[in-house]
Amino acid sequence: MLFFSKITYLNTAEHNNLGFSMVSSHKYNVALVGATGLVGRELLKLLEDFPIKKLKCFASEKSKGKELDFKKSKILVDTLDEKSFEDIDIAFFAAGSKLSKQFLPFAKTSNCLVIDLSSAFRMEENVPLVIPEINPHAINKKTRLIASPNCTTTIMLMALFPLHRKFKIKRIVASTYQAASGGGIKLMNKLEKDTFDILVDKKELAYPYGFNLYLHDSALKENRYCEEEIKMLLETQKILEDKNIKVTATCVRVPILRAHSISMNVEFEKDISLKEAYYLLKKSPNLTIFEDFEKNRFATPFDATKKKETFVSRLRLDPTQKNTIELWAVGDQLLKGAALNGYQIAKYYISL
Amino acid sequence: MLFFSKITYLNTAEHNNLGFSMVSSHKYNVALVGATGLVGRELLKLLEDFPIKKLKCFASEKSKGKELDFKKSKILVDTLDEKSFEDIDIAFFAAGSKLSKQFLPFAKTSNCLVIDLSSAFRMEENVPLVIPEINPHAINKKTRLIASPNCTTTIMLMALFPLHRKFKIKRIVASTYQAASGGGIKLMNKLEKDTFDILVDKKELAYPYGFNLYLHDSALKENRYCEEEIKMLLETQKILEDKNIKVTATCVRVPILRAHSISMNVEFEKDISLKEAYYLLKKSPNLTIFEDFEKNRFATPFDATKKKETFVSRLRLDPTQKNTIELWAVGDQLLKGAALNGYQIAKYYISL
Repeated sequence: MLFFSKITYLNTAEHNNLGFSMVSSHKYNVALVGATGLVGRELLKLLEDFPIKKLKCFASEKSKGKELDFKKSKILVDTLDEKSFEDIDIAFFAAGSKLSKQFLPFAKTSNCLVIDLSSAFRMEENVPLVIPEINPHAINKKTRLIASPNCTTTIMLMALFPLHRKFKIKRIVASTYQAASGGGIKLMNKLEKDTFDILVDKKELAYPYGFNLYLHDSALKENRYCEEEIKMLLETQKILEDKNIKVTATCVRVPILRAHSISMNVEFEKDISLKEAYYLLKKSPNLTIFEDFEKNRFATPFDATKKKETFVSRLRLDPTQKNTIELWAVGDQLLKGAALNGYQIAKYYISL
Repeated sequence: MLFFSKITYLNTAEHNNLGFSMVSSHKYNVALVGATGLVGRELLKLLEDFPIKKLKCFASEKSKGKELDFKKSKILVDTLDEKSFEDIDIAFFAAGSKLSKQFLPFAKTSNCLVIDLSSAFRMEENVPLVIPEINPHAINKKTRLIASPNCTTTIMLMALFPLHRKFKIKRIVASTYQAASGGGIKLMNKLEKDTFDILVDKKELAYPYGFNLYLHDSALKENRYCEEEIKMLLETQKILEDKNIKVTATCVRVPILRAHSISMNVEFEKDISLKEAYYLLKKSPNLTIFEDFEKNRFATPFDATKKKETFVSRLRLDPTQKNTIELWAVGDQLLKGAALNGYQIAKYYISL
C-alpha cells in the first residue's frame, strides 16, 4: 500500500499550500547547482517557501559573479569545487546529466542529500526515482541521492497513477507534444528567432523550429526508438515498480514554449468505467480535470504554463479495445516536469 | 485484386509526371466551385496540366467579379445558379460540406461528374470514396459523384495501404498534428496574428493559437470522440472495404501552417518484418521514405509543404505488442490531403 497522507495538495481548496502538515521548524543549508538555467530559476522561486538557513547558488564559469534575486536579497553565483558542499544539507542538481555525474563525488564527501533532476542516475538500482504523489515510500531519512524523473514521464504518470492503482496499466501508447523549454533557454530562443524570421522577415528556412515540429532528437537506439521514448518506458516501470507495464511512445518537439502535452491510449488489466475513472482522478492530489464538453474546450499548453498541477482532458473509453481509455494530459515542463517535482521531493524528505 | 497499373507516380524517376499513360486527346469543360478558397487555389494550379476546353470558376457572392490567374490568362469568378453546370463535364466542389449539399442538385440536372472534396457525401453508400492509389476500382465511367476523403485519413492511408495489402490492419492508434490550413485561410491568418501578438507585441492572450495547440474542435459525439477522429475510423473502413479495421484517434491542431503529421501505432493480423515493410513502402506510388537515422533527421511539416507525395518516417517494430509497428507520416494537407487527391481522381476518371 502506498502512503499518501503527507502528500502535498496543490489544487484543492482545503490544501492550498505547497507544504506538508508536519514540517518542523528546522532550517537547512541548501545548494542549487545550475541556478542560472531555466529549471534552476524555477527552483529558486520555489525555494523562497523552503525553510532555508543558507542558500548557495552554483553555475558554470561564465555565470560566476552573476547575482540572482532571492527573497528580496541578492545571491552571488559561484562555481563548484570540492569544498562547495561542506556545510550543505540538501543540494539540488539542475545542470544536466554530464555535470551531475561530475559533481556528485563532491557532494558525497560532505554527505548531504542530493536531489538530482538530470537523467544521470535515474536508472541506477540503488537510486530512488521519485514522484512524491506516487512513490514517496521509495525514500527514507537515510537516502543520500534521489532522482527526479523525466518531464514527460512525470506528467504522464501524474495523469495515470490514480487509474493504475485501481485498474493496473497493461500497455500505454503515447504520442507527445513537447515544448521548447525541455531543450533549455537556447531552444526557446531558437523557437522565437525562427518564428520571427519566418513571420516578420519572411525568410525561407530549410529546417526551422518556428511553425514546424520534429521527432524528438535525443539519441536513437538500436530498436529505432529515441532516448526520450525509452525513458518513458523504463522510468515508468521503475516508478510504478512493475516490469510488466508496457510503454511505446513517439516523442515530438512542437513549437510551444513551455508546457508538454501527451496523447495516451492506455489498456488496463481490470474493467474500467468512466465514472470510476473520474472519481479517482478528481480526488487525486495536484491533478485537475480540465474539460468542457459543451464548449469543446480542453487543456492546452497555454492553460498549463506556470501552473503547478497536471491537467487531464477528453477522457473517453476506446471502443476498439477492452478496458482501454484515451486521454490527454498537459503539464508545465519546468514545474511538475522538473523544478517543482524536485522541490516536492525535498519538502517530503524534511517531513520524514 | 486492386488495379494499379494506371496509377500516377509522382516521385519516382521513371514516372515523373502527374498524368496517366493512357490519357486521350479529349478535352473537358471543367467547373471549380470554391475557386477562391485555399483548396480551390491549389486545384486551379493543378488544373493547368489538365486537358481543359473551358474552365469556369465559382465562389460566394463576395468573390464575384474577382479574377483568378490560369495559364497566363484571367478567369472571372462567378456565383452559382441552376444553369452553371449546363455544359460542364467535370465539376470540382471545394467549398465545404454545406455548399456541396446545396449545389449538388444543380450539377445533377446537367449530369456532369462531380468530384466533391467536402465531407457531405463521403459516407453515403452509393458514393465512392476514393484515393486513386488505393481504391480506383470503386469508380467507373458511369460514376457521377465521387468523394475525396478527409485530409488526415488520406495521409494516414497513403502510408498504411502498402502494408495493409500484405499484412492486413487490425487496429490503428493515431495521434495527429494538424496544420492551420485545415481550417481555411481564416485559421492560417489567426495563427499568424496570434503568433505576432505574442512574439512581437508581447500581448497576453487567454486561448491563443500561436505557440499553442488544442484538441481538434470539430463537433463532439456522444462517445466523446470528435468528428475528425470518427472520420478517421469510418472513412478508413469504407476506403479499405473492411468494417473490422479498428481506428482510435486523437486529433490535435498544432501551430503549423499547412502540412499534417500523424503518429501511428498499427497492429497487423499477419507477421510483419521491417525488411518487408520497407520493401513494400519503397515501391509504392507517391510515397517517400524520409529518414536519416545517422543524422537523426526525419520528415517535418516544412519538408512536406507544397510536396505532392506523402512522407513516411521512423518506421520501427513496437516491442510491446506482436505484429505491431510505429510510424510517422507527413503530408501536405492542401495537396494530397485535398486538391491533389481530387485532381488525381479526375485524371484517373478520364483515363477510363
